[in-house]
Amino acid sequence: MSLMKRSVAELVGTFWLVLGGCGSAALAAVFMAGTNDIGIGLLGVSLAFGLTVLTMAYAIGHISGCHLNPAVTLGLAVGGRFGFAETPAYIVSQTLGAILAAALLLVIATGTDGFSLGANSLAVNGYGELSPGGYSLMAGLITEVVMTFMFLFIILGVTDKRGTAVAGGLAIGLTLTLIHLISIPVTNTSVNPARSTGPALVLALSGEGKALAQLWLFWVAPLLGAALAGLAYRFFEQPHSATA
Amino acid sequence: MSLMKRSVAELVGTFWLVLGGCGSAALAAVFMAGTNDIGIGLLGVSLAFGLTVLTMAYAIGHISGCHLNPAVTLGLAVGGRFGFAETPAYIVSQTLGAILAAALLLVIATGTDGFSLGANSLAVNGYGELSPGGYSLMAGLITEVVMTFMFLFIILGVTDKRGTAVAGGLAIGLTLTLIHLISIPVTNTSVNPARSTGPALVLALSGEGKALAQLWLFWVAPLLGAALAGLAYRFFEQPHSATA
Amino acid sequence: MSLMKRSVAELVGTFWLVLGGCGSAALAAVFMAGTNDIGIGLLGVSLAFGLTVLTMAYAIGHISGCHLNPAVTLGLAVGGRFGFAETPAYIVSQTLGAILAAALLLVIATGTDGFSLGANSLAVNGYGELSPGGYSLMAGLITEVVMTFMFLFIILGVTDKRGTAVAGGLAIGLTLTLIHLISIPVTNTSVNPARSTGPALVLALSGEGKALAQLWLFWVAPLLGAALAGLAYRFFEQPHSATA
Amino acid sequence: MSLMKRSVAELVGTFWLVLGGCGSAALAAVFMAGTNDIGIGLLGVSLAFGLTVLTMAYAIGHISGCHLNPAVTLGLAVGGRFGFAETPAYIVSQTLGAILAAALLLVIATGTDGFSLGANSLAVNGYGELSPGGYSLMAGLITEVVMTFMFLFIILGVTDKRGTAVAGGLAIGLTLTLIHLISIPVTNTSVNPARSTGPALVLALSGEGKALAQLWLFWVAPLLGAALAGLAYRFFEQPHSATA
Repeated sequence: MSLMKRSVAELVGTFWLVLGGCGSAALAAVFMAGTNDIGIGLLGVSLAFGLTVLTMAYAIGHISGCHLNPAVTLGLAVGGRFGFAETPAYIVSQTLGAILAAALLLVIATGTDGFSLGANSLAVNGYGELSPGGYSLMAGLITEVVMTFMFLFIILGVTDKRGTAVAGGLAIGLTLTLIHLISIPVTNTSVNPARSTGPALVLALSGEGKALAQLWLFWVAPLLGAALAGLAYRFFEQPHSATA
Repeated sequence: MSLMKRSVAELVGTFWLVLGGCGSAALAAVFMAGTNDIGIGLLGVSLAFGLTVLTMAYAIGHISGCHLNPAVTLGLAVGGRFGFAETPAYIVSQTLGAILAAALLLVIATGTDGFSLGANSLAVNGYGELSPGGYSLMAGLITEVVMTFMFLFIILGVTDKRGTAVAGGLAIGLTLTLIHLISIPVTNTSVNPARSTGPALVLALSGEGKALAQLWLFWVAPLLGAALAGLAYRFFEQPHSATA
Repeated sequence: MSLMKRSVAELVGTFWLVLGGCGSAALAAVFMAGTNDIGIGLLGVSLAFGLTVLTMAYAIGHISGCHLNPAVTLGLAVGGRFGFAETPAYIVSQTLGAILAAALLLVIATGTDGFSLGANSLAVNGYGELSPGGYSLMAGLITEVVMTFMFLFIILGVTDKRGTAVAGGLAIGLTLTLIHLISIPVTNTSVNPARSTGPALVLALSGEGKALAQLWLFWVAPLLGAALAGLAYRFFEQPHSATA
Repeated sequence: MSLMKRSVAELVGTFWLVLGGCGSAALAAVFMAGTNDIGIGLLGVSLAFGLTVLTMAYAIGHISGCHLNPAVTLGLAVGGRFGFAETPAYIVSQTLGAILAAALLLVIATGTDGFSLGANSLAVNGYGELSPGGYSLMAGLITEVVMTFMFLFIILGVTDKRGTAVAGGLAIGLTLTLIHLISIPVTNTSVNPARSTGPALVLALSGEGKALAQLWLFWVAPLLGAALAGLAYRFFEQPHSATA
């Protein structure tokens, strides 16, 4: 399929990732029914992020490969699974989709009196002051590099084998759920520069610029982790193709 | 199989969707064990809605296609996957099944002294005063159109490919879970006119008519979103059938 | 495989169902970390029951069919999928496995000072006074009949098709999860006479006989619902085998 | 593939198991948003442990078999599915991976002011004083033996059949989730000596030695349960290979 159509699919898919993941966090993480909090909590948000990837994997996997994430695109390229030449088109599309989703999310969120905009709105990623649990820049850096490394390691392993289209969407989506179950308290979990850019940019345009000032970390760390995984997985490549 | 038998399957399936989804919300979302709320919350309700579709997909997918939703039936028709002529029989059956489930749910719910009927009972959908989080009509409209659009976009993508019967039920059911994780606070999540009609009608017959007065939105928005997705997905159709 | 070996598999599997389902409810539904309840709640218990069936389906499905439930065995027999002659051996084995699990669970539960035995211990099923939410006998009866009917309807549909071994365990296990998400507040959810018998008998032997006095309902209602589903599903049988 | 490469895969996989399972417990089980606890609780931790295995099963299952656990390696060897000669290399690698993960987890956890090291940190396993729910040594011993026995029983059943690579990762991962749903309150759930060794050793090196003094139980009980399952499953072996 043409690069243009594949890029549109990536845009729609990353729109879904940010609308579903950041949207569930912003709208439903805490939700009071009288004095009871029946919100979905970090567990529900973790599931939502994973399900955006799982569901899109089956919907557009056959169109664009369903990366939805510049770090995934880079990691697959470094690992020899995707052409470097097509990387820019994918990354631009993913980032655009994320921005559109964050903008739509802001429109919906402001539809109730209970909403007030702040530096932590729209599930932005951050460290220090913006870290949900007050984790330092160093803790955030290590966490994002390791999590993205493992994310790509698993993606490269899962897609190494033939005929696992069914398992692939499931395994990769649930890997993202797992990563969120571990690391939301540290950085609100990025492992995805596009996912970080959408909310940070929309917040900055609304006058809350702190997250945008930290955005560099969420491009550097995921891309670094992903590239390292692309290199590391080659350790397992050759013998496997011989024995498969 | 005959249209009559397929329509009965749709009736049973939509009965299950409303009994399971609205039932879990009405009976188990909040549940006190002494002073602890051990209810399933919005996360459990989201899973329940998704599991009704997931389980029925495997049970009656081979009989009727397991739409369980007038918006799904319309979206598939607009997308060229289902005959328009059979649309009315499906939609009537789905709506009947939803009404039966809401009626049964009322019978069960009144079996304990702790129950009291109100304008928000039986997990009705609504906006403004009836929105769980007090979201406006406009926020509700946007949310329902976008969510149903994405629901159908994913369904059309998933069912585009050959041989994904296993993944289909999983992906489509979990898409509905995801949609609920995002948007229960806004409208209690419809994306399904039959699901909205059952509780609204049963409540109105019990003297609580507010939800019925808002029911038009939950026919208009899901059907609009679904029809748009049916048109939009054609963008991806042709090249895929060439490369598949 | 011999009926003896298959019966042992049913015993082990039903042991797992009661140990996992009732065990998670008894040990982990409420669990305090300081002043925070981090217990698994009704959602976790619902998942645990479903996962016992899901995991055993893949482990012993090829040995015994993994019924783990007298109502399933009866429903499959009425639906023409299982021989009536082997029904007694399966039901006796299932009930024995459930009793063994309830006894082991009591041993583990009494290993901490925080435990005290009561009429509601070990996740017994019940109505009225023993219903978790105070639901009446009539509400309990309707709920158990309908839930078991739908459980068997889905099982018959799922196992109707060829080549869905993968989806079968998933769909049937998650059906049980869904049933629990809806109906734990009503009867603590049975849909399985063996699952009800284990805790009720072990409690009675420990001097708490109330649940045993209500046990009749949890044999009558599930078996009735299952048999009705076995009959009802025949409506869909013939045309499908013609078109499959 | 060479034993060296397979051992590296086991190291990476067990690193993931401890980082994900113990990490989610240590960082996210309790997490306050104002006065609301939106942490993932025991349910989220149970899912995290299961998802580490599920995701790695698809990523490295084709490389090393994805044991990630000395008890699994021993149980498979006793059950005739794995060579005893390769057992030491696997067990050493698994234990090293677990220690590395616990060390990294300590680095991340200390990145916020809210952290303080104690005898229960890093999700160590324990009984008596160190049991989350104050369960005795005997309750812990019985629980760990039975849970590991069932874990291996299911693994041996799942991997008994041909062509279930997709279902295998799902079923085995979710078995570990289920085991945690039941038994975290008793011992914090081990069923895996490597998983117990990592946090206990790292804590001891940080001056908190109580868990290390109890570590023997979490080698003895899981290995005993696994070996018994390896022997027990042979009961079902022969007739199956004849009828499969």
